[in-house]
Amino acid sequence: MIIGGAEDKLRGRAILKAFVAAAGGPEARIAVIPTASSLGPEIVEVYDALFRREGAGEVVAVRPETREQAHDEALVAALEAATGVFMTGGNQLKLSATVCGTPVGDAIVAAHERGAVVAGTSAGASIQSSHMVAFGGPGSTPKQRMTQVAAGLGLLGDSVIDQHFDQRNRYGRLLMITAQSPQLLGIGVDEDTAAIVEHEVAEDGTERQVLRALGRGAVTIFDPSRIVTDAYEAKRNSPILASGVVLHVLPQPARFDLTSRTLVPRETRVDAEDAAELAEAGADLRRMARDITRDIAADDVSPTQLRRRLARKARRGRPETPTVSPSENPTETPETPETPDSQDAQDGAPR
Amino acid sequence: MIIGGAEDKLRGRAILKAFVAAAGGPEARIAVIPTASSLGPEIVEVYDALFRREGAGEVVAVRPETREQAHDEALVAALEAATGVFMTGGNQLKLSATVCGTPVGDAIVAAHERGAVVAGTSAGASIQSSHMVAFGGPGSTPKQRMTQVAAGLGLLGDSVIDQHFDQRNRYGRLLMITAQSPQLLGIGVDEDTAAIVEHEVAEDGTERQVLRALGRGAVTIFDPSRIVTDAYEAKRNSPILASGVVLHVLPQPARFDLTSRTLVPRETRVDAEDAAELAEAGADLRRMARDITRDIAADDVSPTQLRRRLARKARRGRPETPTVSPSENPTETPETPETPDSQDAQDGAPR
Repeated sequence: MIIGGAEDKLRGRAILKAFVAAAGGPEARIAVIPTASSLGPEIVEVYDALFRREGAGEVVAVRPETREQAHDEALVAALEAATGVFMTGGNQLKLSATVCGTPVGDAIVAAHERGAVVAGTSAGASIQSSHMVAFGGPGSTPKQRMTQVAAGLGLLGDSVIDQHFDQRNRYGRLLMITAQSPQLLGIGVDEDTAAIVEHEVAEDGTERQVLRALGRGAVTIFDPSRIVTDAYEAKRNSPILASGVVLHVLPQPARFDLTSRTLVPRETRVDAEDAAELAEAGADLRRMARDITRDIAADDVSPTQLRRRLARKARRGRPETPTVSPSENPTETPETPETPDSQDAQDGAPR
Repeated sequence: MIIGGAEDKLRGRAILKAFVAAAGGPEARIAVIPTASSLGPEIVEVYDALFRREGAGEVVAVRPETREQAHDEALVAALEAATGVFMTGGNQLKLSATVCGTPVGDAIVAAHERGAVVAGTSAGASIQSSHMVAFGGPGSTPKQRMTQVAAGLGLLGDSVIDQHFDQRNRYGRLLMITAQSPQLLGIGVDEDTAAIVEHEVAEDGTERQVLRALGRGAVTIFDPSRIVTDAYEAKRNSPILASGVVLHVLPQPARFDLTSRTLVPRETRVDAEDAAELAEAGADLRRMARDITRDIAADDVSPTQLRRRLARKARRGRPETPTVSPSENPTETPETPETPDSQDAQDGAPR
C-alpha cells in the first residue's frame, strides 16, 4: 500500500481501515516504523491509537535510528511476527539510509514476500520502489537536476514512486526521472490516496500485478516505454524533451495492470434511469409486435400502410428518436386510427 | 505564435525578436491588441517600445473595449494592413467576449489566413485555440469542474491552449478539458516560451502543421486520442479517470507534427569530442591495415599470431573497448614487438 501522505485520520479513514483489514483486523500484528520521522515515539502513539480504533489486535514500534540499531534481533523478530508493516512519513533518505541493506530492511522485504501487507505514507511510500526520489523541487516541467534518485527497498520493482503528487506539483521531477530511466514506471500518488498493489493469479494460471486506487485523489502513472528524450544531453536546469510518455490518471476505483501497463476494464455500471427506460421500451415493443401480428393475421393492410403505421407507432413510443424524417409527415395520407390501447393514447397526447 | 506569458523583455528577448522578424522586421506593420488587459495605453506603450527596439517598422494600437467598438472600420483597416498582430495578456474572457464574432475578430482570423503572423501572450495565447480555457484553479490532478471552457478565435483548430503552464501548475485543468473533449489536442505553454505553429508543404506536396518550441521552458502536449475516461460521470470536484493520454514535453528546439501528432525527428548533432575520437580511430585503423598488408606480404605470421596481434593493437588504440576478454591475456605467448611507431608508443604508455 503506497499512500501519498496526509491520509484521512478523522472522517471516513478509508485507507487506514483498508490497511488494518488487510493486516488481519483483530488478528493483526502491526509493526510501525517511524524512522523517517524526527518525531519517533509521538508518531508511533498516533498510529497506535488509529490502528487500534480500527480494531487492530496488536501494534508495536520498530524504530531503528542508526544502521547499528537496524541489526537489532528484537526488531527483526517483531517484523518476522508482523502481519502488517507501516512506515510513517518524514525523510525517506533518512529511512533508506538507516534500514536498506540491514537485517531490519531485509525483514521488511521478507515480510512483503511472505504476504504481509507493507504500507507506507509519504516517505514510507517513496522507499517502496526500486528507485527512490531522494528529494527535489516542485514544478510541472521536467528539468535537468531538479531531483535526485537513491535506491529504495524495491518492494515494487522497475519503478519510482512520488507522493503528495497533486498538492506539491511533482509532475516535473517524476518526469525527469522516467526520462532518464525509461525502464522505470513512474507512479505519483496524491494525498489521502493509496495505490494498493496486489498479485493476482488468473484462472488460466497467468500472473499479474494489479494496482488499485483508493481515496480522495488520484494515482498518476507515467509509462515512458516509448519515450523520445534528450535527457542524456540536456544542460543544467534546462527543460528535458520527453515525447511519447503514456499518462494514466487513476482515481478510485480504477485498477491498472502493472504487467501489461494497461487499465483493467471495469464492469459496466448500469444507470437506474437507463434501465427503467429500457424496460418500458421493451414493453412497448412487445405490444407493437402483438398489434402487427394481429394486423397481418387479419390481412387488413397493404405493405405501405403497415410501414407507415409502424413509423407512426415508433414516433409515439420513443419521441426522441424519430425513424422517419419530419418532412414526410405533411404528404402522408390520413388513415383510420388503429385499434387504440390506453398506453398508446397516453403516449400520443403530450406531443 | 502562442506565448505562455512573461516572455523575456530584458535579456535575450528571443521570442519578441522572432515575432518582429516573422512580421517583416523593418517592413513590419504590427497591430497591438491590448483588450485583454485592464491597462490599455500603458501596455501598448511597452510593446511599442519593445517592437521598435527590435527594428519593427510600424506599431499601432487596436483597442476595442466593447463589441460595438469591435465594429469600428478604422480598427478593421489597421488589421487588414498589418503584417503582424500581437494580443497582450490579461483576461482572455474579456478579449474573446469583446472581439470573437465581430469584424475585428474576423479581421484577426483573416490576417492569420493570409499569412500575417498572429501572436499572443498569456490571455492572448489562450484565445488562439478553437476551445479556450476561460478560467480555473491550479493542481496537477484533473478534477470535475475545476475549469470552464469558452469558444476561442480558432486560429488553431481542434485544440485547447493553456499558459503559465509550469509556473501555475495547470496540468490538472488541461487534462480535465481533454478528458471531456478527446477530439482536442491539449497544449500547455510555459512562461517565456512560445509554441510557433507553421504550415509546411513537403516536396511531395503533402501538407502539415508543425509546432516548434522556442524559449526558456517547454511546450507540453496532451494527445487524448486513445483516452479511457469516466469524465461523463465523475462527480463534482472528484478526480477524473484519464488513462492512455500520450504526453509530449517539448523544449526548444523540438518540433512536433500536429497533423500526425508525432515528434519531428531532429537532425543528429555530432559531438565534437566524438568526431575527434572517431577521426583518430580511423587513422589507427588505416595504419593497422598497412601493417597487416605488409605482414601478409612478408608471410611472416601464422593466422593465430595475426589474430592476437590485431587484438593487442585494438586494445592499445581504443582502451575502453577491449575486443578480447581480459582472461585471455595471461595465456598469451609473448611476441616480438611490431615495428613501433610514435603514435602507438604514445597510446600504449598510460594504460
